Amino acid sequence: MQPKEIKKYRKYFQELIFNKKDIVFYPGKYPNSIFLILDGKVRVFLNYNLGKEFTLTVLESGDVYSGHTRAFGQAITDVKIALIPIEVFRAMLTDLPGLVFGLVNVLGDALKGSIDVIEGLVFDEAGMRLIALLQEWSRDGETTDEGILIRLELTREEMSSMIGSTRQTLANIFKELSRAGLVELKQKKLLIKDFEGLKAFYK
Amino acid sequence: MQPKEIKKYRKYFQELIFNKKDIVFYPGKYPNSIFLILDGKVRVFLNYNLGKEFTLTVLESGDVYSGHTRAFGQAITDVKIALIPIEVFRAMLTDLPGLVFGLVNVLGDALKGSIDVIEGLVFDEAGMRLIALLQEWSRDGETTDEGILIRLELTREEMSSMIGSTRQTLANIFKELSRAGLVELKQKKLLIKDFEGLKAFYK
Repeated sequence: MQPKEIKKYRKYFQELIFNKKDIVFYPGKYPNSIFLILDGKVRVFLNYNLGKEFTLTVLESGDVYSGHTRAFGQAITDVKIALIPIEVFRAMLTDLPGLVFGLVNVLGDALKGSIDVIEGLVFDEAGMRLIALLQEWSRDGETTDEGILIRLELTREEMSSMIGSTRQTLANIFKELSRAGLVELKQKKLLIKDFEGLKAFYK
Repeated sequence: MQPKEIKKYRKYFQELIFNKKDIVFYPGKYPNSIFLILDGKVRVFLNYNLGKEFTLTVLESGDVYSGHTRAFGQAITDVKIALIPIEVFRAMLTDLPGLVFGLVNVLGDALKGSIDVIEGLVFDEAGMRLIALLQEWSRDGETTDEGILIRLELTREEMSSMIGSTRQTLANIFKELSRAGLVELKQKKLLIKDFEGLKAFYK
């Protein structure tokens, strides 16, 4: 930001102050404004009432973000922002070319963040399918002191294709489930150590 | 694009030609270049070998996109692009401020596209959970000539909370499944008309 050049636009700004944890913006709240973070940090996230939120990026002092998206913003520190009408912001952009690089960076980061979210969801989807498959197979499993022991009759290739995924993703899911202490993979056998925990893992 | 001003940079461009349907770029192919679409249209998408692709945006003549993302690009017409080294592109941006607005638009569109993908995945996830639930309930269902008839003992509110979703999303999923001819909702009863089709619907 170039404080001097920005000064002449300041009269068009509406300054707002938020406490840590406050919701700074939500979809449709400021459709015709741009936010400029003057001080503090704002987390940008998607929320679909699923009990989990998808963080896209974190805005810092000097960053700009559009009010015209489906994202929420939450103060992760005390925050001061400027609300700038879109027409004023357009004039500022032509006047202060440096400003637009900040916008490109923020958009690039948010895009990267949303691709991360997509990959997480795709991974969870494959995980949910694997767990459904294991539940089915566990009906023919052997109940032991340690848990339910399943004999795996398919190759890794066949299993990954059954869950519509790749061998690499399948291996990653098994790694994640093992690390969480839910299953133990032994060559052609799988021990389900915590059946209820497994069913709930990707929910 | 301003053809005249761009001319002096042209000697740094590497021009490439692709036929309709060709893959123009893939992750890691040109990590240090920016693409400028000179002619034609390129679809930008994510692919995780799931048998489906997630389209983020479509680039048109004059649009720029970075080679440094996890996205693929496919020619949807015959295409001519310029590969521009990042350092050259940086110099162009300071020289030709108009260029950066195109970049903001493209990034904004790609971000919007990726949020659409996230919403689609979240919707599919809720749909998969609903189908798992219906499969479970169908064990106590009544087999009729038209299909399996389930008595719904929960309110819509309770059902949506069981699939970790909202009433609105639940209603949309039922609408989608009905339209596909898989189920028929009748007040407190649900008729599963095509059990196999239902199981496969969100896969």
